[in-house]
Amino acid sequence: MSETHQAQETYAQLRERAELLDAKDELAAKRGEFVLDDTVYLDGNSLGALPANVEARVADVITREWGKLRIRSWEESGWWTAPERIGDRLAPLLGAAPGQVVVADSTSVNVFKALVAAVRIARGDAPDPGPDPARDEIVVDATTFPTDGYIAASAARLTGCRLIPAVPADVPGVLGPRTAAVLLNHADYRSGRLHDLPGLTASVHAVGALVVWDLCHTAGALPIGLDEHGVDLAVGCTYKYLNGGPGSPAYLYVRKEHQPRFDSPLPGWNSHAEPFGMRAEYKPADDAVRGRVGTPDILSLLAFDAALNVWEGVSAAAVRAKSLALTDFFLECVAAYVPEGRVESITPAAHAERGSQIALRCPDAAGVMKRLIERGVVGDYRAPDVLRFGFTPLYVSFADAERAARVLADTLADTLEEAPEEAPEGL
Amino acid sequence: MSETHQAQETYAQLRERAELLDAKDELAAKRGEFVLDDTVYLDGNSLGALPANVEARVADVITREWGKLRIRSWEESGWWTAPERIGDRLAPLLGAAPGQVVVADSTSVNVFKALVAAVRIARGDAPDPGPDPARDEIVVDATTFPTDGYIAASAARLTGCRLIPAVPADVPGVLGPRTAAVLLNHADYRSGRLHDLPGLTASVHAVGALVVWDLCHTAGALPIGLDEHGVDLAVGCTYKYLNGGPGSPAYLYVRKEHQPRFDSPLPGWNSHAEPFGMRAEYKPADDAVRGRVGTPDILSLLAFDAALNVWEGVSAAAVRAKSLALTDFFLECVAAYVPEGRVESITPAAHAERGSQIALRCPDAAGVMKRLIERGVVGDYRAPDVLRFGFTPLYVSFADAERAARVLADTLADTLEEAPEEAPEGL
Repeated sequence: MSETHQAQETYAQLRERAELLDAKDELAAKRGEFVLDDTVYLDGNSLGALPANVEARVADVITREWGKLRIRSWEESGWWTAPERIGDRLAPLLGAAPGQVVVADSTSVNVFKALVAAVRIARGDAPDPGPDPARDEIVVDATTFPTDGYIAASAARLTGCRLIPAVPADVPGVLGPRTAAVLLNHADYRSGRLHDLPGLTASVHAVGALVVWDLCHTAGALPIGLDEHGVDLAVGCTYKYLNGGPGSPAYLYVRKEHQPRFDSPLPGWNSHAEPFGMRAEYKPADDAVRGRVGTPDILSLLAFDAALNVWEGVSAAAVRAKSLALTDFFLECVAAYVPEGRVESITPAAHAERGSQIALRCPDAAGVMKRLIERGVVGDYRAPDVLRFGFTPLYVSFADAERAARVLADTLADTLEEAPEEAPEGL
Repeated sequence: MSETHQAQETYAQLRERAELLDAKDELAAKRGEFVLDDTVYLDGNSLGALPANVEARVADVITREWGKLRIRSWEESGWWTAPERIGDRLAPLLGAAPGQVVVADSTSVNVFKALVAAVRIARGDAPDPGPDPARDEIVVDATTFPTDGYIAASAARLTGCRLIPAVPADVPGVLGPRTAAVLLNHADYRSGRLHDLPGLTASVHAVGALVVWDLCHTAGALPIGLDEHGVDLAVGCTYKYLNGGPGSPAYLYVRKEHQPRFDSPLPGWNSHAEPFGMRAEYKPADDAVRGRVGTPDILSLLAFDAALNVWEGVSAAAVRAKSLALTDFFLECVAAYVPEGRVESITPAAHAERGSQIALRCPDAAGVMKRLIERGVVGDYRAPDVLRFGFTPLYVSFADAERAARVLADTLADTLEEAPEEAPEGL
């Protein structure tokens, strides 16, 4: 059998497999709830695709709620309470009971609130920075998305803490009686590696510290179990697997039992017990509302609210099962189509260590991604040499995964001899 | 002449005056660029009316930029640079040259960035909180909008400063060699009193401290002159006189000469010199971009961008002239229609001390405002006894002002004997 013949047979087999997998996919109908085209969109780990119902909802917010009701909408259209109401809608996807999540501000700003508040809770009544407090260390994932590291450094500086960067595997080893708070990512934004949220949370608690989890790269792609695993605080964006739209507001989870001691470094009138009392003295609201600050960004917030409709009837377990099947199948197709050694997956093979993206390392990654995009396969590139492919189970099909691998193989074959080029980078 | 006859003559005269003033109003045509109805909308100092072009622009952002281009829009649709590009569009209304304003985050969050950064600049290289730094006092307007006070207290706590509240008139008296930064409101949100921005700025500079101005209640209603008056830092919302929509992102002005030393307590990847370098070390951008933090809220931001179109061909001087004429005329109508002593204006009569709202005190203000709204005159209420009427020169007419005063007089006459009721409160 010739090589070409063998390759054609492999193509045929994998395409047939993709068809079978798509036919059995219980989430397949969800694809129809998104605005998609013939592009293979594997960048939903950066910006989720547009849910079809968002446009009409936002038009109504603009023309009726803002245009006609104007100021009355803060009460009559429920704008004022939207951050906590939408937080409660999101909560099941995070494994959180109601009353613990607000949607507002950016992830960076929420990391700051959570980390400073965590340090204060860990220290009890000690003032910050305070004279030589017992707990004066913040541990941060050394491989973190950069913003988290910058914000952790700022929180440490302002609370008089020392910042200790450590890769997640080394975190248990650096914890001790001086640890106040630990900031970790549930999944690595580059490699797609999933970290052990229950185990690391338990390690942090064992030394009497608090943990803040950044869920940007997992919420909406797999079950989180915040309540179940005793997570103290968590943050995340809503524009990746949650499809809230570009720069849609982030969320902040404050565990029920910590709420009375959640002492925000960003206290605003929106987190006041009586916001319209307009009092000079700050008295925080009793519940998750104390995680709010300023006036919520209504257009973006209600776009995200509409985007949450696609989760109706979807279980986090079903999403996770499809996510793993998709990434397994993509890796299988890549192995079949791409000559050995041409790319290297830095995403763990073990399911327990894999999020919902596959990261492939190759020497001319920027140029390769540019050509992939030209050929209708949209992933993104992370310096210096990583191709990222995100798999959103609600709208990515097995046929997409097969086609992406095939186009990747063709692209790599065509560009073997060419020089690297700049490619657009995703978020 | 009977009392009724006299009253009818007064009505006729004032309505005729209103007609003449509207006929001569050079901004009159701007009203057609907003979505309005037969309501007299005097709450634009809380939530500006909807500019007619916003809906189509946001629909395009959703369907084309997000829906079709998806991740490519961060570059191709200019999303990534929108905060500084739109900041530059806003800058002329603030009296600022380009390259000093970014639009992002809430006012509260920007107050925090500005105030902590101001303290750091005033202290030079001293660490915060640092051992007994020379400058350890933050002065804050004691009559400020509550959020500013809460954030100032948090900034003081985190930088090891003492917080000194003072009413604006007393501010020069509390300044001294220990003053690091001063947070002031350009106009009082309750009374509508305009404070002396050039004079107070000079007083703060005389002791070597920095001033942060909150422009929420003035930008879009009168000339600000940030560059001209040497203001160090300024913040403000975009949803009042700037009509950006509910919770649209706020702005942050960092004077050119301070930018190299602007050391943000909220350093994010968006303010990095090389955001896609994804470096663990934070290196701030050279310019106003260092005022950014997290991913900008694109839908709300671009709605505001569209809302800025209504300023085409409008000078801040013309807006100010009409604003003063409107509030003068409203006060004149109130004096003519409302029995003496029934309401008391707490807004200064002197033009130099008046913003663009009139605040009337009356004992049953909550109930009165509820009835005004039922009768088509929308202002708002501030506890315990203030009726607020905001005059947005771009869409409020002199006929509106006359009608509002007349309906107020009728309402007060009808409700003389009734008990106070709860009224909706604006933002």
